[in-house]
Amino acid sequence: MAHRAWGERLLVVGTGLIGTSVGLAARAAGAEVLLEDSDPGRLRLAIQAGAGRSAEGDLHVDLVVIAVPPRATGLVASTWLELAQGATVTHVCGVQSLPQRDVELHGGDLTRFVGGHPIAGRETSGPVYASADLFQERPWVICPTAVSSTEASNRVAALADDCGARPVVLDAATHDALLARLSHVPQLVASALAGSITGLDQDRAALAGPGLRDTTRLADSDPRLWTEIVTANAADVAGALRDVAQPLLELAAALEAGTEAETNAQALLEEGRRGRSMLPGKHGGAPVELRAVTVVIPDEPGALARLFGDVAAESVNVEDMRVEHATGQPLGIAEILVLPAAYDRLAAALRARGWTLAS
Amino acid sequence: MAHRAWGERLLVVGTGLIGTSVGLAARAAGAEVLLEDSDPGRLRLAIQAGAGRSAEGDLHVDLVVIAVPPRATGLVASTWLELAQGATVTHVCGVQSLPQRDVELHGGDLTRFVGGHPIAGRETSGPVYASADLFQERPWVICPTAVSSTEASNRVAALADDCGARPVVLDAATHDALLARLSHVPQLVASALAGSITGLDQDRAALAGPGLRDTTRLADSDPRLWTEIVTANAADVAGALRDVAQPLLELAAALEAGTEAETNAQALLEEGRRGRSMLPGKHGGAPVELRAVTVVIPDEPGALARLFGDVAAESVNVEDMRVEHATGQPLGIAEILVLPAAYDRLAAALRARGWTLAS
Repeated sequence: MAHRAWGERLLVVGTGLIGTSVGLAARAAGAEVLLEDSDPGRLRLAIQAGAGRSAEGDLHVDLVVIAVPPRATGLVASTWLELAQGATVTHVCGVQSLPQRDVELHGGDLTRFVGGHPIAGRETSGPVYASADLFQERPWVICPTAVSSTEASNRVAALADDCGARPVVLDAATHDALLARLSHVPQLVASALAGSITGLDQDRAALAGPGLRDTTRLADSDPRLWTEIVTANAADVAGALRDVAQPLLELAAALEAGTEAETNAQALLEEGRRGRSMLPGKHGGAPVELRAVTVVIPDEPGALARLFGDVAAESVNVEDMRVEHATGQPLGIAEILVLPAAYDRLAAALRARGWTLAS
Repeated sequence: MAHRAWGERLLVVGTGLIGTSVGLAARAAGAEVLLEDSDPGRLRLAIQAGAGRSAEGDLHVDLVVIAVPPRATGLVASTWLELAQGATVTHVCGVQSLPQRDVELHGGDLTRFVGGHPIAGRETSGPVYASADLFQERPWVICPTAVSSTEASNRVAALADDCGARPVVLDAATHDALLARLSHVPQLVASALAGSITGLDQDRAALAGPGLRDTTRLADSDPRLWTEIVTANAADVAGALRDVAQPLLELAAALEAGTEAETNAQALLEEGRRGRSMLPGKHGGAPVELRAVTVVIPDEPGALARLFGDVAAESVNVEDMRVEHATGQPLGIAEILVLPAAYDRLAAALRARGWTLAS
């Protein structure tokens, strides 16, 4: 008898970053998780991380999550539709139309198949970087096909919910067009930007500031995985790529011609600000509003300990935190993010204990 | 009698983010700092921040730092070359050739003029965000003209040094070509990328993940300032823009034609990784190599305090730190960055005290 909306037993096929994180999150929510991976070493790491136990051919599961590379997703999903009779089969792929097409071509009981895509990840990969809270407050797109049963969709939504994510239903085509813009093209743009400095001397490239570093962070991602994603979503990616590249080329032409260069540059920069304002906050999605208590800290052993001792003495839960200071500098800044209700009390308490608040 | 290599009295003209930060850093190094700004409100904020005192027409200074928008820089520098007899005049502008040309056109004692550009900043502006350690370990480019005296160059280098920066000498043309790639084009690319989502519904844009947020962080920058910078460096920016946009358009064409799309995508992604590996680390420049001790922390009041108490008990200096966990999740991760020499000791000590290390 199922205690949770999707059932009790989850099978995760593929224990990379996302698969292992799904296992961790589902176990944290009390589910029984079975793991499967073609690479025994990767499977072992996921088990050690606490994501579940080896499936060992056990087919009695309620829900199967396929977390393998994009091109293999459809075939592996079809295989498990056959193997795990009665189970709902979903996946976590960054593209939806391609695996859906593959599953449809293969046939079988397609009412039990529903596409899925938790919009979370990082530029690192593998089970070692997995985390139970990778999906926390993140959108988890659910893509039912024309024949998916409502029960199957609801099960995937319930899993997303158990993982702390926000289920969002979209059809595969809408998902792919949207993700081309929000994810696939940003990846390619970051790579093209980082790639444009390879002609420089190392000494010269070292003059880059934090702006270029942040803008190109995604360029650390796995080229093989991303080649699969962008080629699997070719038409949408091509169109969205043009929408970024074309204005840059027009600006280049205006700068060289010396006509309208200012108007052109300013329009591009202002449009960028508008786009920025549409992005969700730090935690993504409908963010928990947190407030930062910004504290000046001396750069000496024990200063942070003293600060956190003082924070803890107020029994305030620190939601997130950031410390910035460079070696050898007398001062640093600690941003302590807390729920709004805790802000005033913490700020007053830290001031009373002699800390200087920067904001 | 000068106690420091550039003299004793510094005048900062323009108390925005960079000017105020120069004042703060120079004062932290013991200098006397005079401030000047056409906007009395901004001047007052800089004084309140502790960046110096109002210049009040006092012209007895050894070094003048012009920190005004790019297009005004040359003219303001020329004015202060005349007003502050004997003083070295430099600036902090993101472009070098334009202000240098303006100063040369204006004439006067050009031996005392040296261009300068501390490669530091943030997407916020104004004296409120200024910080004494903005330049710490950052490169500070010094651009002597053909007639700049060695003494003038040395003074600017000594100021950079006092601010904790690393002086790097380049000619103006080399600086501008380099910064087009490392700074001006990344700004425009971030803006074009952010601008490419303005056609989406707000609900849909909210599905964006942290990747797009980081990649477009620069798009928050001031459009007016950046319009001045990129139009002041038009030819170099145009060329560098093409080097980013052209490969993106070629990939778009390959994706649509379906020929060579994989090879093309993978090559672009791999070139991006190569570029990434050329960038300096977190602290910029020739980075201090830091190592991260990654600790699993329970999400409960007092856990961070306990962790930092334990870190402090080892008398290890925390160089930087990052805590990541989402509200309501049982576990979070703290990355404690320390000098390599301290890593083994701290890791062993934390394990001995019962902490789980994630790496």
